[in-house]
Parts: sequence; structure tokens; C-alpha cells
Amino acid sequence: MSPKHTNNMKATFIYKIFFICITAIVSLSGCQTGDGPADNKPPNFVIIFADDLGYGDVGAYGHPTILTPNLDEMARAGQKWTNFYVAASVCTPSRAGLMTGRLPIRNGMCSSKRRVLFPDSNGGLPESEHTIASLLKTAGYATACIGKWHLGHLPRFLPTAHGFDHYFGIPYSNDMDQQFPEGVGYHEGCKDPKPGYFNPPLMRNTEIIERPAEQSTITRRYTQEAIRFMEDKRDQPFFIYLAHSMPHVPLFRSKEFENRSLRGIYGDVIEELDWSVGEILAALKRLELDEHTLVVFTSDNGPWLIFDDHGGSAGLLSGGKGGTYEGGMREPAIFWFPGTVKPQVVMDLGTTMDLLPTFCSFANIELPGDRIYDGYDLSPALKGTGGSSRDVVYYYRGTEIYALRKGAFKAHYITQGEYGGPPKTVHDPPLLFNLLLDPSEKVDIAGNHPEVLLEMQKILDEHRSGLIPAENQLEK
Amino acid sequence: MSPKHTNNMKATFIYKIFFICITAIVSLSGCQTGDGPADNKPPNFVIIFADDLGYGDVGAYGHPTILTPNLDEMARAGQKWTNFYVAASVCTPSRAGLMTGRLPIRNGMCSSKRRVLFPDSNGGLPESEHTIASLLKTAGYATACIGKWHLGHLPRFLPTAHGFDHYFGIPYSNDMDQQFPEGVGYHEGCKDPKPGYFNPPLMRNTEIIERPAEQSTITRRYTQEAIRFMEDKRDQPFFIYLAHSMPHVPLFRSKEFENRSLRGIYGDVIEELDWSVGEILAALKRLELDEHTLVVFTSDNGPWLIFDDHGGSAGLLSGGKGGTYEGGMREPAIFWFPGTVKPQVVMDLGTTMDLLPTFCSFANIELPGDRIYDGYDLSPALKGTGGSSRDVVYYYRGTEIYALRKGAFKAHYITQGEYGGPPKTVHDPPLLFNLLLDPSEKVDIAGNHPEVLLEMQKILDEHRSGLIPAENQLEK
Repeated sequence: MSPKHTNNMKATFIYKIFFICITAIVSLSGCQTGDGPADNKPPNFVIIFADDLGYGDVGAYGHPTILTPNLDEMARAGQKWTNFYVAASVCTPSRAGLMTGRLPIRNGMCSSKRRVLFPDSNGGLPESEHTIASLLKTAGYATACIGKWHLGHLPRFLPTAHGFDHYFGIPYSNDMDQQFPEGVGYHEGCKDPKPGYFNPPLMRNTEIIERPAEQSTITRRYTQEAIRFMEDKRDQPFFIYLAHSMPHVPLFRSKEFENRSLRGIYGDVIEELDWSVGEILAALKRLELDEHTLVVFTSDNGPWLIFDDHGGSAGLLSGGKGGTYEGGMREPAIFWFPGTVKPQVVMDLGTTMDLLPTFCSFANIELPGDRIYDGYDLSPALKGTGGSSRDVVYYYRGTEIYALRKGAFKAHYITQGEYGGPPKTVHDPPLLFNLLLDPSEKVDIAGNHPEVLLEMQKILDEHRSGLIPAENQLEK
Repeated sequence: MSPKHTNNMKATFIYKIFFICITAIVSLSGCQTGDGPADNKPPNFVIIFADDLGYGDVGAYGHPTILTPNLDEMARAGQKWTNFYVAASVCTPSRAGLMTGRLPIRNGMCSSKRRVLFPDSNGGLPESEHTIASLLKTAGYATACIGKWHLGHLPRFLPTAHGFDHYFGIPYSNDMDQQFPEGVGYHEGCKDPKPGYFNPPLMRNTEIIERPAEQSTITRRYTQEAIRFMEDKRDQPFFIYLAHSMPHVPLFRSKEFENRSLRGIYGDVIEELDWSVGEILAALKRLELDEHTLVVFTSDNGPWLIFDDHGGSAGLLSGGKGGTYEGGMREPAIFWFPGTVKPQVVMDLGTTMDLLPTFCSFANIELPGDRIYDGYDLSPALKGTGGSSRDVVYYYRGTEIYALRKGAFKAHYITQGEYGGPPKTVHDPPLLFNLLLDPSEKVDIAGNHPEVLLEMQKILDEHRSGLIPAENQLEK
């Protein structure tokens, strides 16, 4: 018998023992599930939401000098979606879409004048709206909103009025409540903020507990708050909406992350967010909740390009925050739920408005039948049992549809510079791009596909005919 | 005793058995290394080289609709370099740089008129040049060149004249030996090739064995040839230069990959290359050579943007093939050598010219002292014991330096449209970009950094003063 055969036999024997051990361990671990959440308990949900993060700002999405090992590993162990959108390319309407599963035009959270809520705004998300939190509460979920809200800062609009048991965070953008000395402009103030330039409050529930919010520790404190909440609520289903204030300008990060990244302060900030993601996932594992929790990472809109190196990158996509080219509204989106979400790259269409119906599906909650939902249940795609049902994306700017995606194709009916730049331009025929072949929107193929444009016009007409715009909340 | 304690004790017991088993398996597997290559055998080297692949065309580098699971896993298990360059933004000089470890200006393989070799060229890589293959042969390596050569197709310039025991491939670009009917232009012919449009030969060693080369099976046949060579030579050290003809236009892929990708034919082609990478790595594992082989994946230059969806994407980088913006010369670069290359994302500078000194270092071969090498030994960075020694990249276009990178900074002294586009423009002062903060080369900061420009001018002056351009091979 050659040495090779001997080795093979040895190997076979050892592998058999190994297999028996593994089987025993798995069976015994099974006994322990009594200590963890019962199988009939619905899963926990955690949304980790960045602010102004670009499609290209994460290692797994191609950034060359920002290191995001935790997000990369999350993407590998979970699903990396590459055609995932937000409801609008600026903060307030985007968040309204996520939180309600409905286009912001349906709840008044968009306007073609003021694009977001400001500290002097009197409007907010109407009381009549159901949020992810208020729906999950009907199934006994503990709910926490941690971070940026930006759906109304008056008491009747705050998270605590919208289904969240707890709120801790800056209620609107971290560049608000500005007070610049003479001669300092907004852009300059954001890129080199001095004490007193920005004075947003930090709130707990409905109370202001700190003003100005100390922003250099804000990512760390949001993270710690989320982990404390998971620890406290580990025995009941919970929903955490962890909406980071970063990387919106002015950029802040904790001492530990200063000069950590080759990408400068913006890279430091993203690397601290990546640290935060790592902490959240590690805490879930420590609490033995990882196989009972769906974690979603995404952002509210694309990078704010006017800020150069204080803004992010949309990678290969055109445009950024504020606009309806892909860079404004397509975002990194990572779904992680070990044992349930099938690890793969997903090229199907999805949006933040789909999270509400998806969570309700996982939690066996029926959607209220008294209103139109714009979201789709993505759970089959997440489990790998089917594809996404979504085939259409509307690119609203304020109350107007600027562009429409149907399958591979995207038509731009109107284009406009994001902040300055080219003025509003109506295109007839519209510009048409095949986003699967041409994600950077370079080659207009409208002339070759009149049939596609016709089909898209029908979708638009149908959408508009059923649409009743809600009272504008942003001009109040 | 509570049930939890009982479970913990059971778990501890089982984990102990598990640990003992693992230890036993590891020890026994150790016995098997006698079957594999001895520890003092130098490692094998495999370069998998794509043609015109863009920085953004691989999943791990951010492409949204091209699926590359094998390259992504190779990047995860190995090193993903994000600041890795080629010696020139077109084929012939780029390959001359890789093969010799020297700038093409030093061996005449660049010209400011004809940018590459053509079927009517009489020049090629001079006999006086040492190649990776000829150096490795001095240490007993078996050497194979499979695929595109493009360093001279006359017998005295072929791979077999430059240190390769075997050659199998199309000796120049797959769009050469053109014969279009009247009314068909080059661009049109490439995007919709009909039989007879392209008639390049397929060679084995110095013989033409097929003409025109059947290109729809070319990726598959190159791959099979490489695997056969590994199988044949598994008992001696080997070097395989697997230089795919794809994704250079005209694009071809095998039946199995037709309409496989959402990214159209270009995506099909890349997904077949990804399949090829998977086959190579799987064969190395099957032959138990994976821990004895350094595999490098990269490309010769950026995407050929004039071909729209038949060309690739440079991702977030500007420009493409033919130019000296980043998109022309920065490439995906993945190093894989299980147990030796430390898995991580590497942001250090590297180039294809560094492969020759790196391989020589791994194989304990001293570099010839009679000539200047432009490459650096990257082995410390690969092993994780140090960083790359490279701090400077020259961006030659033909025989002229158009741009220079020093650390984070890149100065453009001359810019020019890649194929058409803006004419040659001299910049004084040069354009200056910080590539770590601004990889897309958007924000010119020359005005803020006169000291950087001065330092770069010194580097240029020194480089030029020591440089003796070789006789031009491309105009022969």
C-alpha cells in the first residue's frame, strides 16, 4: 500500500469522527434554543441608515481608499443589492418614503420649493400615516429610533408620536441651526466648522438634553444606545432604526478615528460608521440574536458633490444628492440575516419603501387596506425563493416625476443640476438609458426604442391618474 | 443545576472532543505534504491577464451588473490592490513593461506615432531583453505563454524566443488582420463581427495552427491549455502567463455564456473570464498546488470607452484606454497565494512592472545588474511584513511622460483625448490632484501645493537625465 493510500485511509477515518462530532454539536446546540428566542417569535429588525453616503463609498461597492471590512463582510455573508433606490434624492422625502412605505407625494413630505424640513418648519409626517414602527408595535415590538429623524421636530411629529417607544438623536440635519460670523459662508462653515457654527439639539424622547449636540462622539453614542436597547429588549421582538447623522456635512468623528483613513476626514467618518456596523453585528452575535435579526444597511440619498472631498462618491454612477441621475438615488444596500437571507449579489430592483412591507411580511402583519402602498415585499428575494416583484422606480424631485425606470430602461423627462448647474430642462423625447448595459447613463438610446418610451408613458399616465397629492408639509 | 448549566457542560465536553478531532486532522494532513512539492521548491507563478478590462468591471471593484463570484472570492481570500497600475494605457507597451520589469521607453516598445504593433510590423521585444520567463528559466521553471502576446509576431520576437517553452495563442490583438466589405467601418465591424472580418492566426509555438482563430471558444481553450500545462508540470516549478484575448473587441464568448449576463455581451465575456479564473484556482487546489502558487489577476489597460456597451467601465475613475487619466492605467489587481499572501485590501502603489522583481524575489533569483529595472519587489507587501517600496508612477503616452504620481499626488503635464476628443494640451502649471481624496480627478489643487509640484519636477528631471530611450520597435 502506498503512503498515499495510507494517508487517504487515515483521512477518511478522521473525517468520519469529525462528522460525528459536528452532528453531536449541532444536535446539542439544538437543545439550547430554549434559551434563545422561540422559533415562533417574529424576527428583530435593525435599519442602519447613513446620511449622504454615495453608491461608491463602501469597499464592497468599489471605493479604492475607504476601508470598510465590516460592511464588506456583511455583504459577503448577506446580500449585496446593486439596484436599490431611495424615494427621493434629499433627506426628508427619502426618509418619509422609507418610514411609511409610500411615496412622499402621498403624505405631503415633499415640495418643489423647500426640499426638506428646516428648524423653522411647522410641518411633519402627518399623524394619519402608519410607520414601520407603529405597524410593528401592533405585533408587540419594542421600537427605538436612534439618530436623525427629519420628519418633523414638533412634539406631534417626533418619533415618539410615530410608533417609537424611544428616541435619541438629532431631530434634523446636523448642519442646521446655523450661526456663522460675518464673512463665513455656509460652504466654508461646513468644511471647517468652529464651535458655535452649528447648534442642533440632541434629544431623548421629546426633551432636548444637549445643545449643541456634541457631534464628534455622535456616531459612537448612537451605536452604544442601539446596543443597550438590544440588550434590554433581547427577550421581545424589537425594531431599531439607527439613522446616523454622518456622513452629512459638517463631518465629525471620534478621536480614535482621526486621520485613520487615507481618504481624509470623509474616510475617517465612513470608517467609524463601518466600526459601528461591526459593533452592532457583534452585539447581535453575542446576544445570540444574529439568526433572529434582519439587519439592513443603506443611505438616504447620494453624495453631496458640491463638497468635494467632504462629500462622497457615487462610484460609476452619474450625479449625486439632489438630482435624479442614478448617483442621487441609487444606494449601497446590504441585507444580513444569517440562516435566512441567502448570501448573494442581487441585481433585482428594490427601494427603501419596500422595507415596510418586507418587515410586515416577516412579522406576519397585514398591511392596512385603507391606503396605497408603493413598497413591495422583498422577502422572497431575500430568502432566495423568488425575485423582487418591483419592476418600476419613480424618480421624484419634489412633487414632479423627473425620471422613470422600468426594468433595464430609464427615461429622463426632466433633468436639472443638483445644486446649481444646468437649469431645469424638459426632454421631449425623453433621454433613454439602458441601466444594465450603461449604468453611468452615457448613451442616449431614445431613438432606438420608441416602443419602450410608449410603454413607460402608459405607466406614468396610470400612476398619475391614481395619485392624490397630500397637503404640502414642507412649506408650513 | 439549571438546564442552562447542563447545556453549558455538554457544550464544553463536545467542544473539547471537537478540538481534539481538529488537532488530529491537522496533524494527519501535515503527513500528506510529502506528496506535494517539497518546501524548498520555489513557488509557481500564474499571471491571468485580461485585455482592456476596466477598473470598475469586476464585482469586487464595484460593477453593479457583472457577476464575478470567483474573482470576488479570490480578492477576499487574497489581496485586492486598489492603486495598481500598468506601464502604458495601450497594449504593446503595457505588456512590454510587465514582461521585462522595465518602462517600455527602455526597450523601444513605445512610440508616439504607432501606439502598438500591427500585423505589418517588423519590430518586437529586442532579444537583449530579459523577460520574467527567461529569468525564471534560469531557476528551472517550466514556462508557458498562453494567449495574446503582442510583443512581436516574427519568429525572433515570439514567446518561444523569449524564455517560454510553449506558446499557444493569438500573437496580437484579436481585432487585427481585418478585412471589411465596402461600407463597413472598423467600429461597426467590431461591434457586429461577421465571418471573415477578422482573420488573426492561432499559433502553437512558432506555427500557425488555425486561421482565422475561432474566437468564440478562445477563452475556454486558453483555460484548458493552462490547466493541462499545470497538470503536466506539477512536479517542477512553473510559470504560466495566461493572457486572455478578451474583453478586447470584437467580443466573443462560448455558447454556455451567451446571454448569461445582464450586462450584455460584454458581461458575458467577463463572466466567462471569471469562470476561467475559477477553473484555474480549482485546478491548483485539485493538484494540491494552491499553497505553492502565486496567482495574479490584472489587465493591460483600461476600458475602450469608444465602444460604449462593448467596452468596459473604469468605475469611479476618469478616462479609459489610451489616456493618462486614472481610468486608462489603474487596474483591478488581485494576488492569491493561500498561506503566503496575507488577505487584505492593499492601497499601496504597485505596477505590472513590479511582478518581475517580485517573482524573482520569491524564487531567489538575483536581478541582472547590467540594466535599470523600474519594478520593485512587492513581496513584503504581499506577505504582510511590510509596505510597497513604490512611491512613484510614470504615466507615459508613447515616449512622453504625460503625468506623474508621487504618493497621494498626481500631476498632469500634458493631457489629450484618448481616441479623438480634446487635442494634446500642455499644462503649465500642471493639473494636480490628490488621488487618495479625489480618485476621480475632479478638483485641481495645483494652486495650493507649489511645493509638491517642485518636488515632482525634481523627480522628473532626475528620471529623464538617467534615461536612454531605446531604438523604436513600433515603426519598423
